[in-house]
Amino acid sequence: MTHRATLDFLLNDWLDAPALCQRPFHADHSADTFAAVLDLSEQVATEQFAPINRLVDIEEPEFDGERVLLPKQTEAALNCFSEAGLMAASKPEAVGGMQLPTVVEMASMSFFYKASVALAAYPMLTRGNANTIFAHGTPTQIDVFAKPGFAGTSFGTMCLSEPQAGSSLSDIRTKAVPDTGCGDWANDPLGPRYRLSGNKMWISGGEHEMGDNIVHLVLAKIPDATGQLVSGVRGISLFIVPRKLVSAEGEISDIRNDVALAGLNHKCGYRGTVNTLLNFGEGKYLVDGQSGAVGYLIGGEGKGLSCMFTLMNEARIAVGLGATMLAYAGFEASLDYAKQRPQGRHASPAGKDPSSPQVPIIEHTDVKRMLMAQKAIAEGGLALGLYCARLVDEESTGTEAQAHEARQLLELLTPIAKSWPSEWAQEANSLAIQVFGGYGYTRDFPVEQYWRDNRLNMIHEGTHGIQGLDLLGRKVLMNQGAALKLLMARVHATAQQAFAQDANQDKSKSTLSEHAEALQSAWQEIAAAAQAAWSTAKPEEALANATAYMQGFGHGVLAWMWLELAMSAERSEHLPADFRAGKRAACDYFFNYELPKIGAWLGVAARRDMTCAQASAAMF
Amino acid sequence: MTHRATLDFLLNDWLDAPALCQRPFHADHSADTFAAVLDLSEQVATEQFAPINRLVDIEEPEFDGERVLLPKQTEAALNCFSEAGLMAASKPEAVGGMQLPTVVEMASMSFFYKASVALAAYPMLTRGNANTIFAHGTPTQIDVFAKPGFAGTSFGTMCLSEPQAGSSLSDIRTKAVPDTGCGDWANDPLGPRYRLSGNKMWISGGEHEMGDNIVHLVLAKIPDATGQLVSGVRGISLFIVPRKLVSAEGEISDIRNDVALAGLNHKCGYRGTVNTLLNFGEGKYLVDGQSGAVGYLIGGEGKGLSCMFTLMNEARIAVGLGATMLAYAGFEASLDYAKQRPQGRHASPAGKDPSSPQVPIIEHTDVKRMLMAQKAIAEGGLALGLYCARLVDEESTGTEAQAHEARQLLELLTPIAKSWPSEWAQEANSLAIQVFGGYGYTRDFPVEQYWRDNRLNMIHEGTHGIQGLDLLGRKVLMNQGAALKLLMARVHATAQQAFAQDANQDKSKSTLSEHAEALQSAWQEIAAAAQAAWSTAKPEEALANATAYMQGFGHGVLAWMWLELAMSAERSEHLPADFRAGKRAACDYFFNYELPKIGAWLGVAARRDMTCAQASAAMF
Repeated sequence: MTHRATLDFLLNDWLDAPALCQRPFHADHSADTFAAVLDLSEQVATEQFAPINRLVDIEEPEFDGERVLLPKQTEAALNCFSEAGLMAASKPEAVGGMQLPTVVEMASMSFFYKASVALAAYPMLTRGNANTIFAHGTPTQIDVFAKPGFAGTSFGTMCLSEPQAGSSLSDIRTKAVPDTGCGDWANDPLGPRYRLSGNKMWISGGEHEMGDNIVHLVLAKIPDATGQLVSGVRGISLFIVPRKLVSAEGEISDIRNDVALAGLNHKCGYRGTVNTLLNFGEGKYLVDGQSGAVGYLIGGEGKGLSCMFTLMNEARIAVGLGATMLAYAGFEASLDYAKQRPQGRHASPAGKDPSSPQVPIIEHTDVKRMLMAQKAIAEGGLALGLYCARLVDEESTGTEAQAHEARQLLELLTPIAKSWPSEWAQEANSLAIQVFGGYGYTRDFPVEQYWRDNRLNMIHEGTHGIQGLDLLGRKVLMNQGAALKLLMARVHATAQQAFAQDANQDKSKSTLSEHAEALQSAWQEIAAAAQAAWSTAKPEEALANATAYMQGFGHGVLAWMWLELAMSAERSEHLPADFRAGKRAACDYFFNYELPKIGAWLGVAARRDMTCAQASAAMF
Repeated sequence: MTHRATLDFLLNDWLDAPALCQRPFHADHSADTFAAVLDLSEQVATEQFAPINRLVDIEEPEFDGERVLLPKQTEAALNCFSEAGLMAASKPEAVGGMQLPTVVEMASMSFFYKASVALAAYPMLTRGNANTIFAHGTPTQIDVFAKPGFAGTSFGTMCLSEPQAGSSLSDIRTKAVPDTGCGDWANDPLGPRYRLSGNKMWISGGEHEMGDNIVHLVLAKIPDATGQLVSGVRGISLFIVPRKLVSAEGEISDIRNDVALAGLNHKCGYRGTVNTLLNFGEGKYLVDGQSGAVGYLIGGEGKGLSCMFTLMNEARIAVGLGATMLAYAGFEASLDYAKQRPQGRHASPAGKDPSSPQVPIIEHTDVKRMLMAQKAIAEGGLALGLYCARLVDEESTGTEAQAHEARQLLELLTPIAKSWPSEWAQEANSLAIQVFGGYGYTRDFPVEQYWRDNRLNMIHEGTHGIQGLDLLGRKVLMNQGAALKLLMARVHATAQQAFAQDANQDKSKSTLSEHAEALQSAWQEIAAAAQAAWSTAKPEEALANATAYMQGFGHGVLAWMWLELAMSAERSEHLPADFRAGKRAACDYFFNYELPKIGAWLGVAARRDMTCAQASAAMF
């Protein structure tokens, strides 16, 4: 089934996205305008992004000593994206947006991630950057720095990591001091004006010649009265640092800010996204005769990390969707190959005759297993991504009660939306290679690139380990476990619905109720494991197996998604029988093959297994 | 602990390799000569192979229209290997060998696979090629074609796959017809002389300018009286096809045989091994004015596949060891990094002070988990590889009873020795990348290359799916399940030994008995799953989940290995305490974190789950 057919099913049959048009913010929209946006997105992605995905892998960004050079096709493709108005799809008209629901925007993005995840990273970062300024900036900052991002004329970055501070952001050393040389620095129309100095590592889109400007969002510390940097996250503030200086009226000057490229990172994959090491304030580009990168405080002193989390949470869900769509891309490619490639014969007695013709490999059960696993990962991941986007819509345009509930669920689900697709798309892409056999290992087919591209997703925007700590160390505990209770109530409701829906069916043919029972028992186990992990109230014991816990939790969430999808497909009698049967088969696959894995993961968390914790460095 | 220390432990303390010196064939050897071979191997691998492993990844083989060009360092490194006499390490002196046990030869090879798996592929293939000729060839064929291989002056290949026949070898179309133009073709001193024509795909080492010659071993079909190729594997014969023709006295001529390069494959990894598409008999190089590649029949008509299995079985174990050593290489690199890299603070209350210095990441439990998993995979895989090599020694120099038992165990364990490391080294290398974080994703560190290189191992020498069918479809069934019974008796003996050894310990501190109980129950489950899978006697049901069954079986084998190693370490009081504690910790890790996974895999096999089998192509 096509990606578009699955999106239509998810948006219309399952999530009832058209109902959002009843809300004032989306009043100008309808199922038809949603469809038009998806049509356009698929077309631009297919025609502009997909054809150059291998090119941007081969022609890696280069630095000629002066400029960072990308294949010229990169900017052309990104321009098509912006010109389609997609950058600000979900934003108010006042900032150039289309006022679409986030869930539709995410569905639109899914085409671009699938076509070229490395190219799609540019709009993803630019949009996240502009959204953050839109959420925390002053009206002038929004006009000057967010609007060009939404229009796609400027690009955006997020500058968090430093060579000595990756996962441990509290250890950043980039320093911001008031730009006292510029007069009334505290009342600059663009915001309190500082000079930044320090080194930022892993900055995607950090330097290139595309667009009119690059707007960096930079975490830095303002020294206290004694000149010391405040330890910990409390000391972190956020700054807008444009590559070229901009006037309060938004005019972009030719004056380069003191931000210099220190090097390009040469990656295993994701090569179409330039990734840089940037030096702020090293004096390469003097501004007003002085070194120090000019930056404008946004969101208030010491609020840097909490402002940046606007971007990070969005980026985490986006990374998860990107991973999902790599799984989708590999699924589509290997499915197509499996239907074409003849090899071998059936395992049944009929296949014993070696003079009979070979069959397409999709006839082999093990190949079907590899395709079904990919389908379960790709479509399940897409469902999770859109479910989260739907929660964003509840949060921004729902009632207060809906928003409150959505916010908590989103916080709890974000580490899963990021980690689960990142981990399982890797498996999906590996299976895609396997379906192709030796051909899949060559660069003549696209799947090895998907597999390489995806490997970044477990690392950036918070590593897998960090997501596990966030989930078990913070999210399941917050507000006395309120978010977990909310989630379990929704899971319970799904199970009840399955029992009810099953009552209308021929029971002998349906295992919906069995799946619902398995789901409920899985969630009892997930909740119990968290409780057992924390039963001694010692973080070093509770969190010793946070990653394994997250794996079990993630599979629990996906099983829930799949039961939802199978039921929705069963109810959607207007859809083709094969389509509906396919959703049901993937659901069965997930419950029969995948969900039984959770015991091994949750077990170590529940037992507070200290095998690893207690190993000394000398024992390895 | 060092690779060498672990090898010494495995060879001396666990497998008692020095005892083999009591056998006449190894009478000139001792623990000292074994050590000297390992010293030399480590030195050559470290000094000649490791330093160019990245180079051969970057400087991929190229075809200039005339010749295949490899970096010149490739031949220099391989010459050092041959000059050290390692190619024929385990072979009789009569063919230039050292008469070492196979287990020592494998231990020696482990250094080369770790240093550069792509370079090590050349001696691996050449040795396997020469071994096959040694096993099935006439004395003249051995002198002319095997000896130069053992000396390392000629290279060897295996030519099985064709574009239309990968996993399905019975469908090969390469044709061999008597070379009636050469006089008494049937009585050529080099063997019955044929002319071959056909296309061979995925031929590693298929064309290059190194050494004096390349000896291809080629599967082809001899047409029957009606001129038809016999369907199925019965029709397959094996031929020796030298790149340059050779006289019966072994003189290599300048006459190119009719074997032409049709293309190079451009792979995701393993790039140091040239991989080719070869056309046999297309007429590019005429021999005696005629097209057709000259080939000499070996092993008799229709015996091709069974002869080739000499090479394939050896290659499968070698592929497994290669994968294991990639896991080992990633483990060593990430362990080293984890000890050096400061980042973050402890999860315990002591880590709350953000002004305290950051700790090396090896202090974090999740990093220890990633290292422990790698250790369990790398060292466990190495143990399995050497255990299989020890069985080869039993088979070739043991008593008749030992040989008979060893042969059956080897047949049963070969699909595991191939598949388990291939699959789990991928996970290990992914964890190595993860330990490095963003740095691991760059080409400035070696781990991303290990990860790319390893991805081939689940594909070549019989895909993962093929190994599963071999295991559940043939090996567990053969001789009324005799091999499985033998294996289970050994597992049972290990468990009994654990109960006994535990009796001498402070029980409160030891979980050996618990592990032994878990091991026995796992093997009951493995045996029961095979029985349940076959209970309807329908291959299409029994084999529907052969891959999952193999995964469960593989984890069962590795758990057995780890209990063996933990007990052996406990008994080896002469070894450093940290070394012994490390083996025990890895054993605990395997039993606590890994073995509990088998239920999910074995469950679908035992239930004969037909979810995937019953899915139609239209449902995906």
